[in-house]
Amino acid sequence: MTSILILNGPNLNMLGTRQPEIYGHATLEDISRRCRDHGAARGITVTVEQSNSEGTLVDLIQSARGVHDGIVLNAGAYTHTSIALRDAISAVGLPVIELHLSNIHARDAFRHHSYIAPVALGVICGFGAAGYTLALDALAGQLEIEP
Amino acid sequence: MTSILILNGPNLNMLGTRQPEIYGHATLEDISRRCRDHGAARGITVTVEQSNSEGTLVDLIQSARGVHDGIVLNAGAYTHTSIALRDAISAVGLPVIELHLSNIHARDAFRHHSYIAPVALGVICGFGAAGYTLALDALAGQLEIEP
Amino acid sequence: MTSILILNGPNLNMLGTRQPEIYGHATLEDISRRCRDHGAARGITVTVEQSNSEGTLVDLIQSARGVHDGIVLNAGAYTHTSIALRDAISAVGLPVIELHLSNIHARDAFRHHSYIAPVALGVICGFGAAGYTLALDALAGQLEIEP
Amino acid sequence: MTSILILNGPNLNMLGTRQPEIYGHATLEDISRRCRDHGAARGITVTVEQSNSEGTLVDLIQSARGVHDGIVLNAGAYTHTSIALRDAISAVGLPVIELHLSNIHARDAFRHHSYIAPVALGVICGFGAAGYTLALDALAGQLEIEP
Amino acid sequence: MTSILILNGPNLNMLGTRQPEIYGHATLEDISRRCRDHGAARGITVTVEQSNSEGTLVDLIQSARGVHDGIVLNAGAYTHTSIALRDAISAVGLPVIELHLSNIHARDAFRHHSYIAPVALGVICGFGAAGYTLALDALAGQLEIEP
Amino acid sequence: MTSILILNGPNLNMLGTRQPEIYGHATLEDISRRCRDHGAARGITVTVEQSNSEGTLVDLIQSARGVHDGIVLNAGAYTHTSIALRDAISAVGLPVIELHLSNIHARDAFRHHSYIAPVALGVICGFGAAGYTLALDALAGQLEIEP
Amino acid sequence: MTSILILNGPNLNMLGTRQPEIYGHATLEDISRRCRDHGAARGITVTVEQSNSEGTLVDLIQSARGVHDGIVLNAGAYTHTSIALRDAISAVGLPVIELHLSNIHARDAFRHHSYIAPVALGVICGFGAAGYTLALDALAGQLEIEP
Amino acid sequence: MTSILILNGPNLNMLGTRQPEIYGHATLEDISRRCRDHGAARGITVTVEQSNSEGTLVDLIQSARGVHDGIVLNAGAYTHTSIALRDAISAVGLPVIELHLSNIHARDAFRHHSYIAPVALGVICGFGAAGYTLALDALAGQLEIEP
Amino acid sequence: MTSILILNGPNLNMLGTRQPEIYGHATLEDISRRCRDHGAARGITVTVEQSNSEGTLVDLIQSARGVHDGIVLNAGAYTHTSIALRDAISAVGLPVIELHLSNIHARDAFRHHSYIAPVALGVICGFGAAGYTLALDALAGQLEIEP
Amino acid sequence: MTSILILNGPNLNMLGTRQPEIYGHATLEDISRRCRDHGAARGITVTVEQSNSEGTLVDLIQSARGVHDGIVLNAGAYTHTSIALRDAISAVGLPVIELHLSNIHARDAFRHHSYIAPVALGVICGFGAAGYTLALDALAGQLEIEP
Amino acid sequence: MTSILILNGPNLNMLGTRQPEIYGHATLEDISRRCRDHGAARGITVTVEQSNSEGTLVDLIQSARGVHDGIVLNAGAYTHTSIALRDAISAVGLPVIELHLSNIHARDAFRHHSYIAPVALGVICGFGAAGYTLALDALAGQLEIEP
Amino acid sequence: MTSILILNGPNLNMLGTRQPEIYGHATLEDISRRCRDHGAARGITVTVEQSNSEGTLVDLIQSARGVHDGIVLNAGAYTHTSIALRDAISAVGLPVIELHLSNIHARDAFRHHSYIAPVALGVICGFGAAGYTLALDALAGQLEIEP
Repeated sequence: MTSILILNGPNLNMLGTRQPEIYGHATLEDISRRCRDHGAARGITVTVEQSNSEGTLVDLIQSARGVHDGIVLNAGAYTHTSIALRDAISAVGLPVIELHLSNIHARDAFRHHSYIAPVALGVICGFGAAGYTLALDALAGQLEIEP
Repeated sequence: MTSILILNGPNLNMLGTRQPEIYGHATLEDISRRCRDHGAARGITVTVEQSNSEGTLVDLIQSARGVHDGIVLNAGAYTHTSIALRDAISAVGLPVIELHLSNIHARDAFRHHSYIAPVALGVICGFGAAGYTLALDALAGQLEIEP
Repeated sequence: MTSILILNGPNLNMLGTRQPEIYGHATLEDISRRCRDHGAARGITVTVEQSNSEGTLVDLIQSARGVHDGIVLNAGAYTHTSIALRDAISAVGLPVIELHLSNIHARDAFRHHSYIAPVALGVICGFGAAGYTLALDALAGQLEIEP
Repeated sequence: MTSILILNGPNLNMLGTRQPEIYGHATLEDISRRCRDHGAARGITVTVEQSNSEGTLVDLIQSARGVHDGIVLNAGAYTHTSIALRDAISAVGLPVIELHLSNIHARDAFRHHSYIAPVALGVICGFGAAGYTLALDALAGQLEIEP
Repeated sequence: MTSILILNGPNLNMLGTRQPEIYGHATLEDISRRCRDHGAARGITVTVEQSNSEGTLVDLIQSARGVHDGIVLNAGAYTHTSIALRDAISAVGLPVIELHLSNIHARDAFRHHSYIAPVALGVICGFGAAGYTLALDALAGQLEIEP
Repeated sequence: MTSILILNGPNLNMLGTRQPEIYGHATLEDISRRCRDHGAARGITVTVEQSNSEGTLVDLIQSARGVHDGIVLNAGAYTHTSIALRDAISAVGLPVIELHLSNIHARDAFRHHSYIAPVALGVICGFGAAGYTLALDALAGQLEIEP
Repeated sequence: MTSILILNGPNLNMLGTRQPEIYGHATLEDISRRCRDHGAARGITVTVEQSNSEGTLVDLIQSARGVHDGIVLNAGAYTHTSIALRDAISAVGLPVIELHLSNIHARDAFRHHSYIAPVALGVICGFGAAGYTLALDALAGQLEIEP
Repeated sequence: MTSILILNGPNLNMLGTRQPEIYGHATLEDISRRCRDHGAARGITVTVEQSNSEGTLVDLIQSARGVHDGIVLNAGAYTHTSIALRDAISAVGLPVIELHLSNIHARDAFRHHSYIAPVALGVICGFGAAGYTLALDALAGQLEIEP
Repeated sequence: MTSILILNGPNLNMLGTRQPEIYGHATLEDISRRCRDHGAARGITVTVEQSNSEGTLVDLIQSARGVHDGIVLNAGAYTHTSIALRDAISAVGLPVIELHLSNIHARDAFRHHSYIAPVALGVICGFGAAGYTLALDALAGQLEIEP
Repeated sequence: MTSILILNGPNLNMLGTRQPEIYGHATLEDISRRCRDHGAARGITVTVEQSNSEGTLVDLIQSARGVHDGIVLNAGAYTHTSIALRDAISAVGLPVIELHLSNIHARDAFRHHSYIAPVALGVICGFGAAGYTLALDALAGQLEIEP
Repeated sequence: MTSILILNGPNLNMLGTRQPEIYGHATLEDISRRCRDHGAARGITVTVEQSNSEGTLVDLIQSARGVHDGIVLNAGAYTHTSIALRDAISAVGLPVIELHLSNIHARDAFRHHSYIAPVALGVICGFGAAGYTLALDALAGQLEIEP
Repeated sequence: MTSILILNGPNLNMLGTRQPEIYGHATLEDISRRCRDHGAARGITVTVEQSNSEGTLVDLIQSARGVHDGIVLNAGAYTHTSIALRDAISAVGLPVIELHLSNIHARDAFRHHSYIAPVALGVICGFGAAGYTLALDALAGQLEIEP
């Protein structure tokens, strides 16, 4: 059975309470439940993790090898500053989809650049909580194609 | 009944024959058919247009007002050079999703910047032909939320 | 009798309906009528054209030679991206006034640079629809001086 | 009765003698007289001031509040270097038109940027001495619209 | 029999009348005749096209596939602004020589960069009308080598 | 009773021993005691925390919500590299004062930019250990004003 | 008895009336009185000066030598453009604190750079009128330490 | 007896399995053993540590003071993004050699800049696993010279 | 009889007391006397002026026309920030030599650029007070050559 | 009889053996013979020189005056770094064609800029060894035109 | 028997007398002797050359093919300015180690970039004269691995 | 007896014939004679050297140690590209004056930066051949001061 890790970076544990005009009202727990249900309906096991620490996120990506078939990564602020996450993705060799709740291109200039995107399969941003299930569909589609 | 315009920019009429290692083997006609079918299954009328001309693309965006409920826009090379398309999107006030077949962040540096993204609802890139139906789903999701 | 071409670029056919908080409520037809009346009162024939296509705008500038005595050019978004328009102006050798409805210096940074201004006689921006008759007056004044 | 201040910055007292191939043959006194006459014909009192000192120009802008209804500001070289003038304009809250005799976009690159333009109503440049009366007309037009 | 398309971009229809101190006195028709004669003498069919429209130039490059064996492309101003032309060249997979009448490196800084050159076979610039026959010779030479 | 968190970033646990010519001779414990005493005298509870980990600092800012009324943040090196800290501050919505012991503008160029300052209330730098009590006074002053 | 000069640059004479949403409602006279009282309570003579002229501000800094023990300098717009003020500070060798009412890092990019900060003792910004007494306290603290 | 800490940053625990075409086939454990043996032969105690967390690496550098005589630091991706590591090195005052397995100058542009190199004694890169024993030799050489 | 104006900008009235390690021990009065004597010996009248105000320096340059035959200008900090001084030099059309006591190329990067040098005859810097008499000799030499 | 110097810069003596996938298999001697034959057929004496030294290349350009009628210059790596070669070309006043074997615009970014091109007649690049005879033809054509 | 060329660039003949605080007290002759001895002990013939001329260094690299098995290159100042040396290294195809006595990353910004490093095997800098024997060891290690 | 070396870089052997509108009509021999005479009158032995080769210029600077008391260096084009010359100057430790015939600040932007100026005593430019004797005077003055 296909297994997908949804990995969330810094401040995403604040979802639903943090700046809802930017990030929406759904909490990370709401999103996790929807993703697990959505995955189950497609025969995919979905695991959701979150950490505020760059090092822990690197650990989690490394641990995904041999356990998950792909990663949906909302790296939050580390998207724009972390080469360590980029290297971890290259190191584990799993397909990764970069995800953002908000449209990062409509925000501060320093949010327009991603260290992760060049090593990701693709990018989805701007659809709020709905982006998570879109990303699951996108990753599932890619995984089917590959075998 | 909801109506969505899928608008394609320069060189996308070459799909299937042009650099398949980057853009895949599906032709624009293949994609159009899949999109119309996918839309029909969700109760959405899907119209697909393509032009190599920036001016014609501006015309088509302007004409969408009052006819379509939203636009999936794969502006191709004009993504990176056209302020006219950006202004047309602002002018018609319809929700627009920016779409790319390839992961533009893994290609030439001049493909990393988009004039369109800041006025789009969101961006999807890197999933090949599958991105079109993802974008339809994403736009349909956003349209349901808004009313 | 002096003849002046007022040439409008992309999205200016949307005037009056497009973002009136930036561009005002007058339509291009309203402005054209005012300009023709204003010109007539000064003994100037005023012709108004608009196109969303860079190539057509180049064609129209080229065709102005031997027909019009000068051009008021509101090139819209092409102001910031078109070297072809700049070269067309150099090629026809007619006096050109660059015009903008909005104050482009109070908007996005990419609207601060103009490829056209260095080959224009002068620039007028920020006065909304009233800028058109100011530009006619300015061009008329310059034409009187030159002969 | 409407009152407009025409404020001139550094080296504009040299007009007529200074580089006439760039700035023309009219002296500042010639221009002042024409502006006063032009204003009188429209029922506008026109006051003309000049200073080579940035600080004095700031003083003059501050003093305009409650005395004049708007300012035509040819800040000369300070256009490109003075944030103090910009702040003075924001502080007095009067409508300001930025004016230049020459087409600054056809000259040195450091003359292409203006600290003042973003807080001005609009900009007129490149029409020589004739720009002053155009600016008066433009400002008069805007003042009529506002009340 | 070998067939070569000579494709000309914006304002090249003005050759001979436009700024002859930069571009020389030969008209595009003069050049076309010389190129056809020059080609005929080498057993090459030469077709000459010109358009002011970026989109039409993209169309013409796309149509060259299966019809012509190579393209001499003087893209004029679009050289510096058009990624669409670059992508069209990559899409058709024909050998392309970038040509300019003037030495673009001795002109404005924005003319020093070409989006086309990196996907062209080579570049020839600065030899006026004579550059066209040099480019034909260069392309003919390369075509002989390849088969 | 008002409660203020003084949060210290990487290497500030080395204070007193680390480069005293830049950072002074007071240890973090000395500073903490002075701050608690200074706060007590004004009726403010002062809590001092330090971590070398960006993730832990994000955790501590998130935990401050509902516990403290404001934060004095000396983020040390993370000031210049951490968007995650900036986002945490935006997420908790507490008033934050950015503090530095040294005058960062008199040091390496990469210390002149702060990701935090734009979302902080204000900045104090260059006063050594004395900056902490100044920041407490500043924050206390702001908190009094707000209710 | 310790004597401190509070020196204010361009447009600070407009305080209280100028953009109160940015700069607050206190006038410069209100602030001066508070500073003199605050100083008196600490045994410090406080002198407050203001000028819109860069040259006069340079004069005032030069004259402070031998008269005052330190300077609190709110150079306003000149902070970002004046090397002459920086050189005057270096020339007189008095301790200087750079002060701003608003948080300059949350405003226009050109307000993020200061020519003065690298030669100042420290910087305080973002606390409105309260910043003046904080700066007095900070400077008093530093003066006590130095002897 | 001399003691040297070999400190490894993010993803170096993946050595041997991660992109062997870039990083080689030796695991971190292989390298550690070789380094301990190599050190033992020279009378040097070698300790090897690794962490994916920037904060933990800062902790480890701080803890080295009084325990080790120098550090060989392969900071991996943090080399290019961490000012905190740089400051930790300055704080502990131990000699540090910056080490990289790959030749970082032959890779992505963002890997060409190091925050650490300016405070290191020297840099060794491009020699794969062999770089570790070279760095031990280099550091041993420097330590002998200093006493 | 030839007449030369030696014009000094901001902070040069502090010479001899200001940072003597950079600017030397001679006061401006010492230098003036030496210059007048040096000029007298060559049959040149030397006038020395100084101001801290950019506007006054512009006034003094304007007034030099018809009175002096050339100017030695040590514009101090205004060298790097004043376009108004540059324009004044262009306006009066007198030969100007740019002078600096210190070698500005061995100091802060912002002192490497001069707005004045491109409109000056030449530049002399780095020779301390001796630069003044060198500049007089240089200007005298140029004036002899011209007639 | 017309005489043309073909001057080759650093590493061109390695042609045929050096990176044939970039530079082809012809040796410099092969190319020289072909050029001499090609020239002879057109009545042109062709001289071929090569040096790895920038200074010697400057010497050779200087010596060409009065001996040769024009120069085909393949300056190799010095194209991108040598102002001395540019100045030598300006000094001798002979027509120069800049030549490259490879398409420098399809290689490293630092090979896109040429110090020589702005003072050359024109540029030919990307045609391998065939570029030499093309350049001879181009130069011969230009020389015929000039007399 | 393995043969290694140690090639030294400009000013390295001054070693021992030139700025010993940066470059140490050993002369180039001292270093050569140590290197020859060190090599002999490992069965490596070491040849040491030095030149102040970029062209001669290119010559020496070219001549190394077929004579030496690898090169230790301390290109001194040419490291930062010479593309010709880079191309020579690519042309001869020998393994090259870039060496610097000083830590170039702790010096002027223009010394941080190397044209040579991307085509070298690796880089060693900052260890003074000891760097030469480290580089010999590193190169010997690499040569053993390759066969 | 004091001895000064006047060292001239590339293309200065062309003086008098090369672009006299920029560099004047005096030949290098004329200038040498004037300098020797001028020196003799002051009791200074003047030696004049010229080379087109950067390496030879480095050699000549190195050889000056112990032979000359100072150097007047007109490095021509190498001023803007040679770090080797800068390092040679630092290595010999002699006072150097940078000299240019033309005003380099009124020419191409790439001539505004000098690698040499920061290690020179001072700079003189823009006075043509007369600059040489000015530089001799300047250097003589500095040498007198130092003993």
